[in-house]
Amino acid sequence: MPTKRLLVIGGDAAGMSTASQARRMKGPEELEIVAFERGPRTSYAACGLPYFVEGIVEPAEKLVARTPEQFAKRDIEVHTGHEVTGIDTAARTLEVVELASGTTRSESWDELVIGTGASGVRPPLPGIDSAGVMELRTVDDGIELDRIIAEGAKRAVVVGAGYIGIEVAEALLARGLEVSVVELADAAMATTLDPDMASKVTDALRDAGAEVLLGAGVEGFESTDGRLAAVVAGGRSIPADVAVLGLGVRANSGLAAGAGIEVGSAGGIVVDERMHTSADGVWAAGDCVESRNRVTGESMVVALGTHANKQGRVLGTNLGGGSATFPGLIGTAVTKFRGLEIGRTGITESDAERLGWDVVASTAQSKTRAGYYPGAEPVTVKLITDRSDGRLLGAQVIGGVGAGKRIDPLAVAVWCEMGVEELSMADLSYAPPVSPVWDPVVFAAGVAARDLRS
Amino acid sequence: MPTKRLLVIGGDAAGMSTASQARRMKGPEELEIVAFERGPRTSYAACGLPYFVEGIVEPAEKLVARTPEQFAKRDIEVHTGHEVTGIDTAARTLEVVELASGTTRSESWDELVIGTGASGVRPPLPGIDSAGVMELRTVDDGIELDRIIAEGAKRAVVVGAGYIGIEVAEALLARGLEVSVVELADAAMATTLDPDMASKVTDALRDAGAEVLLGAGVEGFESTDGRLAAVVAGGRSIPADVAVLGLGVRANSGLAAGAGIEVGSAGGIVVDERMHTSADGVWAAGDCVESRNRVTGESMVVALGTHANKQGRVLGTNLGGGSATFPGLIGTAVTKFRGLEIGRTGITESDAERLGWDVVASTAQSKTRAGYYPGAEPVTVKLITDRSDGRLLGAQVIGGVGAGKRIDPLAVAVWCEMGVEELSMADLSYAPPVSPVWDPVVFAAGVAARDLRS
Repeated sequence: MPTKRLLVIGGDAAGMSTASQARRMKGPEELEIVAFERGPRTSYAACGLPYFVEGIVEPAEKLVARTPEQFAKRDIEVHTGHEVTGIDTAARTLEVVELASGTTRSESWDELVIGTGASGVRPPLPGIDSAGVMELRTVDDGIELDRIIAEGAKRAVVVGAGYIGIEVAEALLARGLEVSVVELADAAMATTLDPDMASKVTDALRDAGAEVLLGAGVEGFESTDGRLAAVVAGGRSIPADVAVLGLGVRANSGLAAGAGIEVGSAGGIVVDERMHTSADGVWAAGDCVESRNRVTGESMVVALGTHANKQGRVLGTNLGGGSATFPGLIGTAVTKFRGLEIGRTGITESDAERLGWDVVASTAQSKTRAGYYPGAEPVTVKLITDRSDGRLLGAQVIGGVGAGKRIDPLAVAVWCEMGVEELSMADLSYAPPVSPVWDPVVFAAGVAARDLRS
Repeated sequence: MPTKRLLVIGGDAAGMSTASQARRMKGPEELEIVAFERGPRTSYAACGLPYFVEGIVEPAEKLVARTPEQFAKRDIEVHTGHEVTGIDTAARTLEVVELASGTTRSESWDELVIGTGASGVRPPLPGIDSAGVMELRTVDDGIELDRIIAEGAKRAVVVGAGYIGIEVAEALLARGLEVSVVELADAAMATTLDPDMASKVTDALRDAGAEVLLGAGVEGFESTDGRLAAVVAGGRSIPADVAVLGLGVRANSGLAAGAGIEVGSAGGIVVDERMHTSADGVWAAGDCVESRNRVTGESMVVALGTHANKQGRVLGTNLGGGSATFPGLIGTAVTKFRGLEIGRTGITESDAERLGWDVVASTAQSKTRAGYYPGAEPVTVKLITDRSDGRLLGAQVIGGVGAGKRIDPLAVAVWCEMGVEELSMADLSYAPPVSPVWDPVVFAAGVAARDLRS
């Protein structure tokens, strides 16, 4: 059998985990694997960037899981500094530009994987291109932000209080900067949490010394000699040496769309459960694709390394001659802001309203450990239950150390369509150093079951 | 309707949570509730005793969740220092002895709850009644052990390396004692963990400076003037100022058996899902009953506050005019020894052998956090999978801070009869401070799925 040629566009989590899994299953005599990456690095942990900026993860290269040289040893050829500018699905070729020289060449493929990722939303506001207005998406972004701080930046504005926004705020506060967080919604993390839970995150930001401007859209950026001087937001001019944008992301699906590959209403490449696109022999995974939310049935773009890695594993298995499917996601996420851990899964009460679903929302206050055990901290668990059948549809958890990962048993319960009544009697673990005798998850399920009956 | 009379035998978790739940549902005009407790206290957290001895929970009274006075305010009458010595199921009376005076009286009931708990196993060994040979089951035990240490005890022997054994060892080491742990099996925690996992606990005990004697049965206790001088075990005489027995427990079912109430092969009172015994109007809950293991179908006595509380809630609901059932348990447990957290659920590989079940056992090494994030510690996850259908039947987790509670998503998966293949793609939470991009649970499920296919 002649050697087949697999080309991969994008050298980050989705593309490289696809390549690695395909290589595990097929040797180089069966499958040639070549990846093209626009940037200078492969497989880096973007989620770790705030912690590099904070100064607790060093050096930045520690965030690189695997280098091109390491891939080469596994017979996976990676060309960094190469941008793919066109896909011809009929001829089965790519147009590739070597960025250093500007040379364009054509590369042929038998199978193609698109792992182009996502880009930060960057609205066309006045002054947005001033030096000092930045995102935190690449290792170079992290190094740049670290340099700006080291060179004496004193005042920072974080635009958007989502996951990245609060993680960056933590980092900047830790580095001693004066931090203002500007958020269009009424609370931090308002798009993933219900208002009652989100307000706790807002409070934590303020308690940590950040100024939080809510209901405030950014109107523009003022600069002096091309360098950022202030962020204009909520009718105010906030002096700033640096501004970090955390306004969410959009799937990089333009290249695929240009090749006639189907892109969905959420802006991501449409794939089936095997991660195959609408074009023969063309596959895609990671931040650039749409995934099915198992709870709502909706297609959505969720830019998160855990999905990219799973999808890459599935895709690589299928390319390697196996058979695997990606079962969708349920919107599970976790983060922390200083000592506060925040988790969510499934739908929120706000989602239910949007969908017109009849749900019962219940909130339970508990502790992370037995009340008498040192370090017991408050934890709030909010559950969203289907009123018709008592099924758990979503959960939010906010609390001290140990609270965040409590979203996991709830995620498995949502995944398995477990009812809150059953969960309230489920055999979760108990010992004073890690749980009260009624574990917060079990306790909250009991409250939800009672609310459901009343 | 005339007031009915509910008597409760035992003022700890099962009995008092029953009483509390019944009271929530029925006022004193409908239901009189009277409880008899042999000891001096109600509703104390026995699981917290090692941490009182360790010196991190003080005073001991902090372990008492609710006092008789607090129950009285809720119209629940508690008589401490009262032992029930007989049940007449035909006459619907109890024989009650007031311990201080020795007076016996008869009390009548319409409904009876037995919550007599369990007692520590105390083999009839020579010298076992010497002063200084003790258990750690009551608040008074804790106060006594604390006093012995404060008065200068230097050398301690812990007999049995189960949950209590390792928790007591942690406490005694923290208090500066020389500690020997004597265990009949080949490893610490050998009855709840597989040998490969249990050996990590043994190693941790030794690393912490404890002497661990394995395969060593206690032959007796040597004393001087009635006070413990040495523990004879494994053919050696180990000098000791104090010995703490942690040899497991037996259900206190003798009182019930004496009244003709059915007791099962595991030694516990037999109850149905509503917590009703074989005798009309007689109910039971907590450490004195047998519960159904949902994975094996076996009846077992599991002395753990979390079950006692749930069963009390169920029982109280049924007595209060509602309808509730206890769905059984799956053997979930967690503990820690210093920085090592240990969790388990479902069956072990050893259980599978005993049952003659065809399983695949898989072990996966991972980290508690992203590898580059400070405080990332090793975690080992072992999964037991049904070879015929890929269903997860059990799990064991051992690792650093944050490892223990990772048993909970696994417990929900076992409870819901989830397959490892599905779990390997489940949407669990990810963020560098709390998880690697492949969460240890998801990663282990992936390894198990691969082992299953090969």
